[in-house]
Amino acid sequence: MKVKRSERLIDITHYLIEHPHTLIPLTLFSKRYESAKSSISEDLTIVKETFAKRGIGFLETLPGAAGGVKYIPKMKAEDVELFIRDLCEELNYSKRLLPGGYVYLSDMLGDPKWLRRIGRVIASQYMDKQVDSVMTVATKGVPIAQSVAFYLNVPFVIVRRDSKVTEGSTVSINYVSGSSSDRVEKMELSRRSLDMGSKVLIVDDFLKGGGTVNGMISLIEEFNSEVVGATVIAENIFNGERSVKDYTSLIKVDKVNTQDRTIEVSPGNFSIE
Amino acid sequence: MKVKRSERLIDITHYLIEHPHTLIPLTLFSKRYESAKSSISEDLTIVKETFAKRGIGFLETLPGAAGGVKYIPKMKAEDVELFIRDLCEELNYSKRLLPGGYVYLSDMLGDPKWLRRIGRVIASQYMDKQVDSVMTVATKGVPIAQSVAFYLNVPFVIVRRDSKVTEGSTVSINYVSGSSSDRVEKMELSRRSLDMGSKVLIVDDFLKGGGTVNGMISLIEEFNSEVVGATVIAENIFNGERSVKDYTSLIKVDKVNTQDRTIEVSPGNFSIE
Repeated sequence: MKVKRSERLIDITHYLIEHPHTLIPLTLFSKRYESAKSSISEDLTIVKETFAKRGIGFLETLPGAAGGVKYIPKMKAEDVELFIRDLCEELNYSKRLLPGGYVYLSDMLGDPKWLRRIGRVIASQYMDKQVDSVMTVATKGVPIAQSVAFYLNVPFVIVRRDSKVTEGSTVSINYVSGSSSDRVEKMELSRRSLDMGSKVLIVDDFLKGGGTVNGMISLIEEFNSEVVGATVIAENIFNGERSVKDYTSLIKVDKVNTQDRTIEVSPGNFSIE
Repeated sequence: MKVKRSERLIDITHYLIEHPHTLIPLTLFSKRYESAKSSISEDLTIVKETFAKRGIGFLETLPGAAGGVKYIPKMKAEDVELFIRDLCEELNYSKRLLPGGYVYLSDMLGDPKWLRRIGRVIASQYMDKQVDSVMTVATKGVPIAQSVAFYLNVPFVIVRRDSKVTEGSTVSINYVSGSSSDRVEKMELSRRSLDMGSKVLIVDDFLKGGGTVNGMISLIEEFNSEVVGATVIAENIFNGERSVKDYTSLIKVDKVNTQDRTIEVSPGNFSIE
């Protein structure tokens, strides 16, 4: 039995959202609903217009036999700005300062409501680029990497400071950690988790001196792979020259008040076209 | 300007998927589309029928002034079975055996395609129960906890074996780890990350003797909170009595072949009504 348009629109919407960044041939839908390709094309036009109007994302349609439709969950620039403003509002003057100038973010990085938005915002910057893998360092970066990977629909890999027996063989590097350039630490990545020649997006929660991000860059080189970009939630106050120049940050910490444990933040250099 | 039904159906579908387990008043939609509540009710009937037919989930409609609609992304029992069969197929006889009888799962636990399904399946078992928080132990459990938390739309908390400076004050317990009952380890949880009196769902990748899950149960008690259930991806072969009885597993490892590093798995005791 043929399926009605209203049902098709609902199911197509769900299907596309669950399969972002994936080329879906029209035949999949026409078989699924026992409907003509021309009807499916009309459905997709309606979906495309609504997705664009409502800021849900873009539908790329590729014509021809090998063609189909691809859902790109890229946000509108104004929605990104709105989100970053929300983030600043949430953090500004809040009692989130921890000893050592760190900022407590664990609640947000454990909350699906924040993570969905963080993932979508960061992914939006890289929607037009080829990304094969999202990389982060355990453990704070993991929820961010996973959220970004969900919207880019690519795997994420976790670099560790300590090896686990369940990882198999690893590749490790030494990197200079912290602001004092004399502390050398080790980080490693399971050999199986990244293919040689991958294009890798680095994400993390904080950037201070840039040592951790730099370590990940070295590790990516060990896998003969390429860095697509690096994005952090927050760049911390740092007196000195950062070892990483090329990164984007959603927010930056401007001032910390150790007495009443509050911080002041403002939007970082993150933006999308 | 009023919004057409086709556009409303698409946007409602997206909105519900992004806000699972959340009571959404009809007025939100009627304002959003400048449409009468009666039209919105009709839309929701169509959405509800399609969601049920296509296995997307259930729409709960609550009548009255304080009423609204709630999307419950519960899977059909047959889809759960199908997924577990896929999981067994993926793992059976694969070269995933690591030294010590561990199974390499990092690729799946870093792949959004698997994680979406794992999250939805595990969450489906607890859709009818009150869950305030999903708990796991760093670092392998984190992607599982996050995926389950996305579908239940509740926060997840990460128990650590080593404290981080960015966590603030923690509560720690000692637990008996491993099959030999003489190895005592420590695990801890940030005090801020769990409210007293919470209902907590435990998830993890593996269960062998049950020590880790037992440790989390003790920790939950320290927060005067309650365990709703415990679910693991895989239960390992274990010779002896497990310290945890009440858990569900998606699959169980039946046999390991150390020579060619393959494993044999079969469905665990996981099921939903």
